[in-house]
Amino acid sequence: MTQLVRVHNLTVSSDGYAAGEGQSLERPFGSVDPMDLMSWVVGTASWPGRSETGGSRGLDDHLVREFHRDIGAEIMGRNKFSPHRGPWADEEWQGWWGDEPPFHTPVFVMTHHPRPSFTLGDTTFHFVSGDPASVLAQALEAAAGKDVRLGGGADTVRQFLDAGLVDTLHVAVAPIEIGSGSRLWTSPDDLLDRYHRDVVPSPSGVVHHLFWRD
Amino acid sequence: MTQLVRVHNLTVSSDGYAAGEGQSLERPFGSVDPMDLMSWVVGTASWPGRSETGGSRGLDDHLVREFHRDIGAEIMGRNKFSPHRGPWADEEWQGWWGDEPPFHTPVFVMTHHPRPSFTLGDTTFHFVSGDPASVLAQALEAAAGKDVRLGGGADTVRQFLDAGLVDTLHVAVAPIEIGSGSRLWTSPDDLLDRYHRDVVPSPSGVVHHLFWRD
Repeated sequence: MTQLVRVHNLTVSSDGYAAGEGQSLERPFGSVDPMDLMSWVVGTASWPGRSETGGSRGLDDHLVREFHRDIGAEIMGRNKFSPHRGPWADEEWQGWWGDEPPFHTPVFVMTHHPRPSFTLGDTTFHFVSGDPASVLAQALEAAAGKDVRLGGGADTVRQFLDAGLVDTLHVAVAPIEIGSGSRLWTSPDDLLDRYHRDVVPSPSGVVHHLFWRD
Repeated sequence: MTQLVRVHNLTVSSDGYAAGEGQSLERPFGSVDPMDLMSWVVGTASWPGRSETGGSRGLDDHLVREFHRDIGAEIMGRNKFSPHRGPWADEEWQGWWGDEPPFHTPVFVMTHHPRPSFTLGDTTFHFVSGDPASVLAQALEAAAGKDVRLGGGADTVRQFLDAGLVDTLHVAVAPIEIGSGSRLWTSPDDLLDRYHRDVVPSPSGVVHHLFWRD
């Protein structure tokens, strides 16, 4: 089977932003309240951060489930991993996710600033520089035949799209406007020259856009 | 994790029938052309019967994928397994699916007529009598912690629904009428006293109904 590069559960505003300006430790999504974007996820039974049983098992949940299906590695941008910028002043930062990060695979963090790999729970973080194609080559090898999830943020997904390296995307469009920040697109139609798409409104208020290519 | 009993990809007409009258070797869906019900499935990348690469990866495909996710056993009615009725005149019949049935788990065929188990590919068929609860107990044990797929047909699903044994259902409603045969319901609203539901129209023409309970 061909290994795919997949984007899941990336949520953007109606004007295409996945986060606002001014990311910080206290505000991982910058000016935006994370719940304004992600509330559709946290109510689902399959949300990786869920600690109790229960949750919905409808449309939103069916899409959230894909996060883990047949994934062997993740690639993420530096800003998804950390609110810090520049050289690593503090290597004690181990991500936002506590002692059990929800990835359970190797994770490749794209950064120009070197740092040793470390393992937390059953997730190992590697810090890699280079262009999207070379980072992807490492992730595909680590995934050992499974697919690679491209975890975001929007700027990182944009880089991989521009390099033609993304096979499928699930983007949820939330009914808010952000105005400035980390932007995926000006319109969900921007990708139609290269992808098939289904548009699926959800009862939760987001509209799911499912993209794939031949 | 709790083991769930799940129905996937069960396709019925707008008047609630999953097959017409007169099932036979030549006509597994009786009076109905199988493609009138199932064409939405066969175009997807994840259709278990697919022998070539390609296929759509949109909404329909996301739902089809669930067929295999975390399933440890299947239960099916006698009429899903075979067009024959009554005692097994011919134990050479091994189902409709050729040498590599798409189940890859133990399958429990509900029948009053005993027959030895047999294995084909990596699927083992067991022939069991008893009420839904006792058959389910066997399937749950065989599933070894994974979920049990209730494979159909409509009469079998109906029996399990009436016994309160189904946790989630994905039913696709196709835009045809059948008029008589094996019927799941008079209306998709019949289950709303017991289940939550999302209704999701697909570009392929079917309308997906996703049911779950607390």
